[in-house]
Amino acid sequence: MLNPADQAFAAQLTKAIPDLRIEAPEPRYLQEPRGRHHGNGGLLVRPQSPAQVAGVLRACNAARVGVLPYGGGTGLVGGQIIETGPAPVILSLEKMTAVRAVTGHVLEIEAGASLQDAHDAAENAGRLFPLTIASQGSAQIGGVLGTNAGGVNVLRYGNARELCLGVEAVLADGTVISGLRHLRKDNTGYDLKDLLIGSEGTLGIITAATLRLFPRPAALGTAMMVVPNPAAALALLELAETRMPGCVSAFELISGQGLAFLDAVGPQVHQPFAQRPEWSVLIEIGLPAGLDPQDALAGLFEAAEDLVSDGVIASSDTQRAQMWTLRENLPEANKRIGSISSHDISLPLPKLAQFIDTARRELVALGDMRINCFGHVGDGNLHFNAFPAEGRNRGEYENLRGRVAQVVYDLVDGFGGSISAEHGIGRLKVADLERYADPGKLAAMRAIKTALDPNGILNPGAVLAQN
Amino acid sequence: MLNPADQAFAAQLTKAIPDLRIEAPEPRYLQEPRGRHHGNGGLLVRPQSPAQVAGVLRACNAARVGVLPYGGGTGLVGGQIIETGPAPVILSLEKMTAVRAVTGHVLEIEAGASLQDAHDAAENAGRLFPLTIASQGSAQIGGVLGTNAGGVNVLRYGNARELCLGVEAVLADGTVISGLRHLRKDNTGYDLKDLLIGSEGTLGIITAATLRLFPRPAALGTAMMVVPNPAAALALLELAETRMPGCVSAFELISGQGLAFLDAVGPQVHQPFAQRPEWSVLIEIGLPAGLDPQDALAGLFEAAEDLVSDGVIASSDTQRAQMWTLRENLPEANKRIGSISSHDISLPLPKLAQFIDTARRELVALGDMRINCFGHVGDGNLHFNAFPAEGRNRGEYENLRGRVAQVVYDLVDGFGGSISAEHGIGRLKVADLERYADPGKLAAMRAIKTALDPNGILNPGAVLAQN
Repeated sequence: MLNPADQAFAAQLTKAIPDLRIEAPEPRYLQEPRGRHHGNGGLLVRPQSPAQVAGVLRACNAARVGVLPYGGGTGLVGGQIIETGPAPVILSLEKMTAVRAVTGHVLEIEAGASLQDAHDAAENAGRLFPLTIASQGSAQIGGVLGTNAGGVNVLRYGNARELCLGVEAVLADGTVISGLRHLRKDNTGYDLKDLLIGSEGTLGIITAATLRLFPRPAALGTAMMVVPNPAAALALLELAETRMPGCVSAFELISGQGLAFLDAVGPQVHQPFAQRPEWSVLIEIGLPAGLDPQDALAGLFEAAEDLVSDGVIASSDTQRAQMWTLRENLPEANKRIGSISSHDISLPLPKLAQFIDTARRELVALGDMRINCFGHVGDGNLHFNAFPAEGRNRGEYENLRGRVAQVVYDLVDGFGGSISAEHGIGRLKVADLERYADPGKLAAMRAIKTALDPNGILNPGAVLAQN
Repeated sequence: MLNPADQAFAAQLTKAIPDLRIEAPEPRYLQEPRGRHHGNGGLLVRPQSPAQVAGVLRACNAARVGVLPYGGGTGLVGGQIIETGPAPVILSLEKMTAVRAVTGHVLEIEAGASLQDAHDAAENAGRLFPLTIASQGSAQIGGVLGTNAGGVNVLRYGNARELCLGVEAVLADGTVISGLRHLRKDNTGYDLKDLLIGSEGTLGIITAATLRLFPRPAALGTAMMVVPNPAAALALLELAETRMPGCVSAFELISGQGLAFLDAVGPQVHQPFAQRPEWSVLIEIGLPAGLDPQDALAGLFEAAEDLVSDGVIASSDTQRAQMWTLRENLPEANKRIGSISSHDISLPLPKLAQFIDTARRELVALGDMRINCFGHVGDGNLHFNAFPAEGRNRGEYENLRGRVAQVVYDLVDGFGGSISAEHGIGRLKVADLERYADPGKLAAMRAIKTALDPNGILNPGAVLAQN
């Protein structure tokens, strides 16, 4: 059982780390983006070095006080919010934002820097850091790694995990692991980096990371193409990857329902097709010098004549930006409509089209709903969200919500998919993980948690249920 | 303390798993490729299913008998050899070789299959499994993953780790983890896959894996180019990657010493340059449709006129094969010469040229030696090996051997490199890991080992020293 981060503990902390300011958390540290959960936080600390982080953790561990790592606060599964139980110390690394080093291949950056900071640092070095998510202005590197963020460029460049070469991290007992490697190959012992990445702050606090930088493609091409159904979208992806192996960086599925939501509630965006297609894809490619991306996309369009009925190839940066603006505003339109239940799932590609058909059929059998299914279909990741019928609101579906999620997750599980593709488990999916995860995996996870954080102080209640 | 795998234990094992044959290990299970170490093995078991593997581990765990996972036996750091202490059960998965499934993106294959089997299965499906190492005819998938093998294509496609989507594995207590995911994105809990990969069989036994398949590039191009020094080789790499981002699949540094060894002791191979260059690189690219790789390499050669003094672009599959045959025979020539000390190291790219200069200087100051420095320079991995002066033999350098390794590793460590880039720790580098690893990392490794294998039965003495 943990103890609250109360004034007595604040006094201990001050004694242990005299130059660390201990604050009362402002309301922004107690919120999450959907505004549905409200946190309970005792003390806020914003350390300025790994040594201070180690000091905080040592003190919390000794006093059995919980530590809530708070990054940009953009997570969607409640990993950053403790609603009940003893008030934790909220640990924000927002004062640790330094770019420690940049080379042609590696960016060494502190965990409190935003993802946008990493993009900017890469661009200033003439390089690319490809991880791209809608919230990158706020999301911090620590959170991006803690949740193994994905986004739109995973198809070509991989998840946060694959883009990180090493981490500096602090364990529950204050042990600092200095692992800021600049190496593609390093087989010296267990892969702690990947254990910490995606552990959502429950095994250690990442304080800095080395991130892989890439050469910028000589030329980018972007297009939207209309397909009759998701199966055709996947066939188009296969064709694109066969013609341009490793060059397709994004392949996003967009449903007519999403476009209709944008039309109905905004944000107002430019839509390339006057008649809103039931299914379309946004495709982006980056090519070596010597190939024109517009020609390549035109060639793909031609070769895909059986799969694609209409298409627009961006002929300017403005058009390219318009296509991405459309895509990136889909979640905001969803938010304005208000979902009954949202699902961040992934599926093996050969099962994806069948899943969409089956899940839609089973959900509408439950009640009158609208489905907005969209996402990073190139890497198997769908955002499969259920919304109220037109003229109704989410409150009217309260009693269906749990059933909707269960139908979706049961199907996902049956198809060998994941109930959390890129958002993680946080606190909102702890029970789902218990239900769907392999029991052997859960047992091993608990053993590792106990080994590295025996008092359970790190992000208590996230990922794994508390004992 | 462990107990030996003696006849009494054999009787217990037979009782626990009646349909498992228990054998005496043939000599081939007690050898390693360099012939310098000889193993001690009590019993050999070759289970045919994860359930049988689980049975073996449960029995060994209960009786505190060590388990030595034996794959293709090609490892170079003694991970497959126990020389002293209680005789272990040698566990070979050579009877588990099934290709369980192949899709356009994923190969599901059992751990006893050879790496070549995986290549063949991918090719039969019109796809590519890119991990390529010289020993792939013998090396087994379980060992490839257990050691996180690298090889020549890491630059473009990544290590074994990045090519594996999921594993089925058995923990020390017989718990089976069923994690054969076909997913690029899956954030449901701790990353056990990556913890097991590279743990060299000390945390669990991988029994099957899902591997990523790739579209085959439309066209491959291969060339050898002569550079004045390693710094120029790295500048050439930078130029190649800038012109063809993501398309350079291999970039191998070859030293004149290596070519001289081939000339002196064979194997006889075709050498493209009549006058053996002091430094050259082998470069391979794979391009999208629409680009001719020979043109692209010619264009690179032209653009690199300040860096490259001579070059040969393969104009046929035969020529391409000749270049790779040269590269792949360098280790055999080394073996025939007989090294004083070999080092599988990696360095941050900006430090690599300076390392080669400095290390060479420091080593020749120790004694009269020849250095053959070659390797996967594109990913920072060097094989930096010291050989006797001409006319002398390795025996004469016995008293220098330890000092040579220490000079190399101290320098590597000082430059932020790795003392084991792709071969792992095994038993031969356990003391080196103790010396050079971050103490926090070692402490966390020990905690994890104790949590998952409290009796220390799995590959005892590998990676971490036994208590």
